[in-house]
Formats: sequence, structure tokens, C-alpha cells
Amino acid sequence: MPTLRVFAPATISNVGPGFDVLGCALYRPGDTVEIEACDAPGVILGEVTGDGGALPLEPARNAATVAAAAVLQRAGTANSVRGLRLHLHKGMPLASGLGSSGASAAAGAVAANLILGQPLSPLDVVQCAIMGERAACGAAHADNVAPSVLGGFILIRSYDPLDVVRLPVPDGLFVACIHPHCEVSTAEARRRLVGRTASIADVVANTGNFGALVAALHQGDLGLLGRAIEDRIVEPVRAAMIPAYADVKRAALAAGALGCSISGSGPTVFAFTDAAVTAAAVARAMRATFRDRAALDSDVWVGPICRDGAHMVP
Amino acid sequence: MPTLRVFAPATISNVGPGFDVLGCALYRPGDTVEIEACDAPGVILGEVTGDGGALPLEPARNAATVAAAAVLQRAGTANSVRGLRLHLHKGMPLASGLGSSGASAAAGAVAANLILGQPLSPLDVVQCAIMGERAACGAAHADNVAPSVLGGFILIRSYDPLDVVRLPVPDGLFVACIHPHCEVSTAEARRRLVGRTASIADVVANTGNFGALVAALHQGDLGLLGRAIEDRIVEPVRAAMIPAYADVKRAALAAGALGCSISGSGPTVFAFTDAAVTAAAVARAMRATFRDRAALDSDVWVGPICRDGAHMVP
Repeated sequence: MPTLRVFAPATISNVGPGFDVLGCALYRPGDTVEIEACDAPGVILGEVTGDGGALPLEPARNAATVAAAAVLQRAGTANSVRGLRLHLHKGMPLASGLGSSGASAAAGAVAANLILGQPLSPLDVVQCAIMGERAACGAAHADNVAPSVLGGFILIRSYDPLDVVRLPVPDGLFVACIHPHCEVSTAEARRRLVGRTASIADVVANTGNFGALVAALHQGDLGLLGRAIEDRIVEPVRAAMIPAYADVKRAALAAGALGCSISGSGPTVFAFTDAAVTAAAVARAMRATFRDRAALDSDVWVGPICRDGAHMVP
Repeated sequence: MPTLRVFAPATISNVGPGFDVLGCALYRPGDTVEIEACDAPGVILGEVTGDGGALPLEPARNAATVAAAAVLQRAGTANSVRGLRLHLHKGMPLASGLGSSGASAAAGAVAANLILGQPLSPLDVVQCAIMGERAACGAAHADNVAPSVLGGFILIRSYDPLDVVRLPVPDGLFVACIHPHCEVSTAEARRRLVGRTASIADVVANTGNFGALVAALHQGDLGLLGRAIEDRIVEPVRAAMIPAYADVKRAALAAGALGCSISGSGPTVFAFTDAAVTAAAVARAMRATFRDRAALDSDVWVGPICRDGAHMVP
């Protein structure tokens, strides 16, 4: 039987003041799912590689298989395929703030939809991928899953009902992402927000910045985009969980970044720039700072925003 | 000496979840300033009409004269005009939630800039108008002043430094405004917010809606605009100050409004529609509800968003 391979990109979520509502897709890193039809009903999880043995092998707890099973179920009995077998190749660090389980879920959902002949709409595929992320994480934050499936910048207006809005990717926008080799638990990062409240003044500042960020994407105003990457509510709480974060951010801005903030719940830090060479320089500056101030090695990824989401690869 | 007349439009501020950061301009109502150069230095306040005697006649406390004086001072001594005299004709109710002092300040600032030969940029004129509103109100909320000066939808990204962003006005958008004959003190409305905080869940909901609102204006998606007019943080506090507000909003939506909320600190209520006839029907439904449920008469204004701000009139 034929095998399909689908790559799903890592994503920056919580972009600036867009906590839980704005994410965007990168070209690299990302996860790859290989999928094939099989006679046994349901979805079987074959090999999992690249995770260092950290991921559960039960299909019911794996983001990719749960997402694929959701697609299979929605497609219904009209489809001639009874079951699916998939292999997951992690191409990105876990608990990095780059939407690792979201990328696995996106790859599983898109791969299943492709092999079934695309019975589901893109929004339905996003909903199946959300189910995968929820099974793996206990919670689903569509600002990872949706841009990993759909590509570009995706705004989540509402979770219930799910209402997602594609925002334009301005020409000339580049991003530098750096993952220092330390761990931030997403669950712990969430716990630190429990019971927190925001002052009206901070709500006003964040609302103004987030509106400006959305306007900047539509108007292609990269200077405005940079000024709008300012979050007074969540970033201050999460900055404390990343060693030397303030120094790294300062170094990124000094090296020419338009704006800089935390991806997801960290420890990955991202910076936007208006030129590829600046993104490379910003990545170098951030890496040197993590090394010098926190004795941390890092991985970096530099490139444009990926306008395509999860897609078939040879 | 020649006299110039400038009309400055009323504005809806706090549009939906855009508390203190988003306003838009109406065609009517609005204030008119007549201005002429004079030999005495400074700005003299002549006649004030239409206010029922409620406004102070000292130039230092009147929004229009303070704004005009700020323009005169910024223009500097290079300008041959030594002093200005202005007359203010209020064309809108005070304390209505329609930016009454903002319109007076906008009219004064734009009139002064015009008679001096436009030495100031539009953004400088906005800053002078902000000074006028602050003198009259004790606080300046640029989401009234800026759209009254500039027209259309104006986003305030930041107050310090002032950073304003023009957003597009979608074709086919109409608004119905209703001012019930009761008073809401802006100061009291502000007091009710003092010490209030917002939960993270409400911040997420408001951020998603506000981003969607800004995207909807750029994408011309009126359905999305309507869904995004939802504010979980400020509207619930202010709704309690307007008799029968929940009934009026329900009536507006039942009559076809895309979305409905409070303008400024109220009591004016606005609703967006996608057709002129629907706006008229929504206005009738809201008026009937204020009458039947709260025994209040109302004034209504129906029309498109005014893309021009304060401008010279014959």
C-alpha cells in the first residue's frame, strides 16, 4: 500500500500580546508523519523516532494518532479505508515553546485527511488536530495547532465555537528563534498564571498593542509590528522562568530586531526582523548572550514565516 | 478679517473590546467652531451656543480654546497671527458618550491650524486637541479626539509616546447610534473601573475579539466585525449604568445588527449593520425599547462611518 509523508511546521504561539490567540508557522523545525492505510480498524502507532524515548507509545495518548483517528472518524464509513498506521518522526525538541505536540497533531490530522482523499475542510482538520493536542497535553491551544495546519499567521478569535482568522504575512518579515537547552514545563508555566489578574491599564496597553500588531500585518508596516510586540500581562510572569531572558531580549533589539518575545511558554525566544541578514545577526547575538550570561547552549532557526502549513513531502 | 468655520464629528469610542484604544467618526452630530485672527495675543472665547449654558466660558477650561491655544503656541512666533478668537456651537449633547469635549477640542485645533496656514501635521493637531480635552475633562482619551480630527477608525497603540494607526473603513458598513435622555457621568463611569482587574480568561477573550475586529476592518468582513464586538471586561461594568441596556442590545441584534455595544461611557448605544435600511430599523427598535422598558425618549443618528475628520464648512 502507498505511504504518504507529511511535514508539519513548528509554530510561535502567544505572539507578543497575543496570548493564546495568535500563532505563526516556521519553515523549520517540524515533525514528519508517515501514514499508510491498513485493514485493522482505528489508528495504529508504529515507530516514533527523534523523541529520545520520551513520548508515550499508546495511540490514545499520542497527539498524531489521536488527531488521525479524529479525522478517520469524521470522514465516516463512506470512506473505504478502515484503518491507518502511522509513524512519527519528531524533528523538534519537546517542551520547547515551539508547539511540539501541536506539530505532531497537525501532521497526523493532515496526513490522515490526505490519505483519505481530503474529505474534511481545513477548519475540520484543525479541529481534529486540536483533539490530538488535547489528548497529549490535557489542554489545546489552537494558536499552535491552527498555524501548523494552515500556515502563516492565524488568529483565534474564539475557542467555543472555534473561529479562526488568517492574517497576511508581510513581505520582508524574517524571524530568528532560539531554543536554549533548558526546560520550561508548559504545565508549570500555566500554573503561574492561575488566579492572576490584569489591571485595566495593562489591558488597555495590551489591547492597543495587539490591535496595532494585527493592523501592522495587514498594512505591511514592520516598524509598527515591532513596536506592538509588547506584552505587559503574560511575558513578565514567564520571563522569570527563562535564565537571562532580559539580557537576551536586549541583545536581540541591540542587534537590530524589530521586536522580541517568548514563544509559547518558552524557553524559546523569537525576534522579528526586516532582513534575512539581520535575523542571522540577531540569532548570533541571542546565542552568545545565553552562553555568556546563563552558560546555556542553544539551537537557532532563522528564516521567513512559512505561509504554507503542514504539507506532503517526498 | 476672514472667518473660518470647522465642523468636527462626534465619535464612538471604546468600540467593542477596544476600551480606550479604538474610536470612529460619525457624520452627525458634531460641533462647529468659527475662528478669526485678532490682534490680542492668545485665544479668546467668544460665543458658546447649543450647550444650554453648561460649559465654562473661561478659555483655560474650554476644550476648543485650549486646543486652539496649543496649536498657536506650537506654530510659534514665525507665524504672523498673534491671537485668535473663536465661537463654539455645540451640536451634540454633553456627557452622552459621543465624545462631546473631544469634538470641541478637535474643532478648535483643526480650525486654528487651518487659519494659521496648516503649520502642524495631523498628528501634531491631534496632540493639541488632546490637550484641549484634558483641560475640559481632567483626562484625555485619544480614541475620541483622534478620530474626530482624522476621521474613520483610529487605533491608539500607545499614549506615551502617542502612536495612532488609521484602520480602513469597510464598504457597506453603517452605524445606528441612540442617545437616551438620561445622564451617565464619565467621571463616575471611570470610578467604577478603578481597582478593577480582569481574569486571564477574559483577557484572552477580549484580545481574540479585538484582533478579529481589526482584521475584519482590513478584510472587509462585516460578519466577523459583528462577532468581534464583544467585550467581557468593561461593558459588563458600564451596562449597569444604562437603563434597559440588555433589552436594547437584544432588540438591536434581533432587528439585524451585526454587533451592538456602548459608546464611550454611555448612555449612547451604537450598533453596526451591513445596510442602511437595517441601520434605520435597528435605530427604531432601540428607540422603542428605551421608551417601553425605561420610559426614556431618545435621539438617534444613522449613517455610514465618516472617513473624513474635522473639516471646513461654508
